[in-house]
Amino acid sequence: MSDFLALAQSGVQQLSPYVPGKPVDELARELNLDPASIVKLASNENPLGASPKVREAIANELAELTRYPDGNGFELKARLAERCRVQANQVTLGNGSNDILELVARAYLAPGLNAVFSEHAFAVYPIVTQAVGAQARVVAAKEWGHDLPAMLAAIDANTRIVFVANPNNPTGTWFNAQALQAFLRDVPSDVLVVLDEAYIEYATGGDLPDGLDYLAEFPNLLVSRTFSKAYGLAALRVGYALSSPVIADVLNRVRQPFNVNSLALAAACAALTDSDYLAKSRELNEFGMQQLENGCRELGLGWIPSKGNFLCIDLGRVAAPVFQGLLQEGVIVRPVANYGMPQHLRVTIGLPTENARFLEALSKVLARA
Amino acid sequence: MSDFLALAQSGVQQLSPYVPGKPVDELARELNLDPASIVKLASNENPLGASPKVREAIANELAELTRYPDGNGFELKARLAERCRVQANQVTLGNGSNDILELVARAYLAPGLNAVFSEHAFAVYPIVTQAVGAQARVVAAKEWGHDLPAMLAAIDANTRIVFVANPNNPTGTWFNAQALQAFLRDVPSDVLVVLDEAYIEYATGGDLPDGLDYLAEFPNLLVSRTFSKAYGLAALRVGYALSSPVIADVLNRVRQPFNVNSLALAAACAALTDSDYLAKSRELNEFGMQQLENGCRELGLGWIPSKGNFLCIDLGRVAAPVFQGLLQEGVIVRPVANYGMPQHLRVTIGLPTENARFLEALSKVLARA
Repeated sequence: MSDFLALAQSGVQQLSPYVPGKPVDELARELNLDPASIVKLASNENPLGASPKVREAIANELAELTRYPDGNGFELKARLAERCRVQANQVTLGNGSNDILELVARAYLAPGLNAVFSEHAFAVYPIVTQAVGAQARVVAAKEWGHDLPAMLAAIDANTRIVFVANPNNPTGTWFNAQALQAFLRDVPSDVLVVLDEAYIEYATGGDLPDGLDYLAEFPNLLVSRTFSKAYGLAALRVGYALSSPVIADVLNRVRQPFNVNSLALAAACAALTDSDYLAKSRELNEFGMQQLENGCRELGLGWIPSKGNFLCIDLGRVAAPVFQGLLQEGVIVRPVANYGMPQHLRVTIGLPTENARFLEALSKVLARA
Repeated sequence: MSDFLALAQSGVQQLSPYVPGKPVDELARELNLDPASIVKLASNENPLGASPKVREAIANELAELTRYPDGNGFELKARLAERCRVQANQVTLGNGSNDILELVARAYLAPGLNAVFSEHAFAVYPIVTQAVGAQARVVAAKEWGHDLPAMLAAIDANTRIVFVANPNNPTGTWFNAQALQAFLRDVPSDVLVVLDEAYIEYATGGDLPDGLDYLAEFPNLLVSRTFSKAYGLAALRVGYALSSPVIADVLNRVRQPFNVNSLALAAACAALTDSDYLAKSRELNEFGMQQLENGCRELGLGWIPSKGNFLCIDLGRVAAPVFQGLLQEGVIVRPVANYGMPQHLRVTIGLPTENARFLEALSKVLARA
């Protein structure tokens, strides 16, 4: 009998799949809990529930379920282009921004080439790099954040992509406009800078740059964004890239013709029109961030200042048992040992009641230990 | 300025994207027509409209739009496993079966390796092969269908995948159980046989094999299926593969963690419970097939006998002007010149009224020319 693991491409053989946040139903099954009693703050999901405009848009699409999606995403691309001050031929739609990251890797990486990214950065960067058999050049973080000069120095003749996230997940760290500009200026023009702005809608203050401002000047820049976070559409998988038309053309060749489904396209169009929802998401997030920071202060715990919809709490000891203790209390957060952060737990900002429930459970678990 | 087309992988540079059926909205925009007046028989879509059970399942999911999908597809995989008489660890879910075909290519092909498939077969086989820089070995068709002995003979030491479709799209041709068994017996055990059964739910009679019957005996067999056709969920993108656990494990490593969205997962689960819908789809298809064949006979046109939900009509002359003429009449069918069939048009079986409208338009266009 042939060995279909050994027959797979060597990059694929060595892949460890992405570990998502533990689903509520899974914990409910395991601990025999009522799913409604479980608080999940594990996947940086928007706690607001879906926008009514989104629900309505989906309802209006149900008559067309038997039809293929518009493979060109005409409507959504037109709206994004307008919103993002680019032409429609600079937009690439993805099945979540995960799809965008993967398309970029498949288009521009291969064995013998490499991608540069930071320590403690999003797990999908190493996965998409590994999947195509390319080399990952991981640059040590500085105070948990990107060390952009060191990342620059790590670029060599075989580098095709640099992944930078602003703000970064799971740390919540960020860099300012000046730092981004200097970085873009110095990156060789044949290296693609993938600026992952999945959390940009939450990020305010701190001279935080808008990646779109740099597209015209730097044709090697691609900005990746998502509807999964502040727009509240994680279930639907819609991400997008903004880039030069040439890069968009290449990604669209690799993209599956119907990568974003019809309900997702309609929902994303509707989400763009609901500025109230976005404002509420931000407001709720700022409130919850204060709530969590205050709670940590009271518990004598440190944290990494964050501009995302999550906070990495420093427990000052191995976090895994605390994570398990929280599960027993029906609270799911995210262990980040696989991000080289064994003493931290990443907690998504939830509703005020959910944040309170988490802090209470954390206090209980820490007291017990 | 760097050339980001030249920097792309060479297989990617040479990709011609998949050309989908012309969307109704696009034609409406181009010809300034009322979209409701247009008949689209271009994408082998189910004319029945969505099952009420599916709509209900989607409505029940709307509260959870802000949550990520279950990346393991626990529920759907469990139901498919039961239905398909396999274990859940033999199921791989895809964002449509296009995703499955791509995962297989990315896992098992690379430059220097090749995939064997037939002339006039699904356009996605060459695309996924090309995208990873592997070689396509295209085997001449026999009476428009797969020449399985010739495909066998085309396998060489560098072949990793053979794509076979039963029934085949766009031709509608098929092979019987005996032919499949002989083929599987003779394919080297280290070559993956991807048996694409996207249209199998429509196929009846003619000693048509069920690919699932061969999984236990042939660990190098993968059966690919979809919810886009007889189950009527093209908008939602759900396909699946059934294979040995080893192959499923490899594909699940390459798969994006949330490749199938939440509404799609829920809809597919519901679709599996609606056997009436499936029965009606088949019935409507058989009726429409008769209707189209009779219509062709009256117009003195030939066709390729088909076991799918579509018919390739032989116009006996270059089809492109007829396709254009039909567009002017508000009827969209599929030109198949890019499948090496310049004298055919592929017509999806629609509702009886749609089929009649097509035949009438065809008669008019042919008379005019």
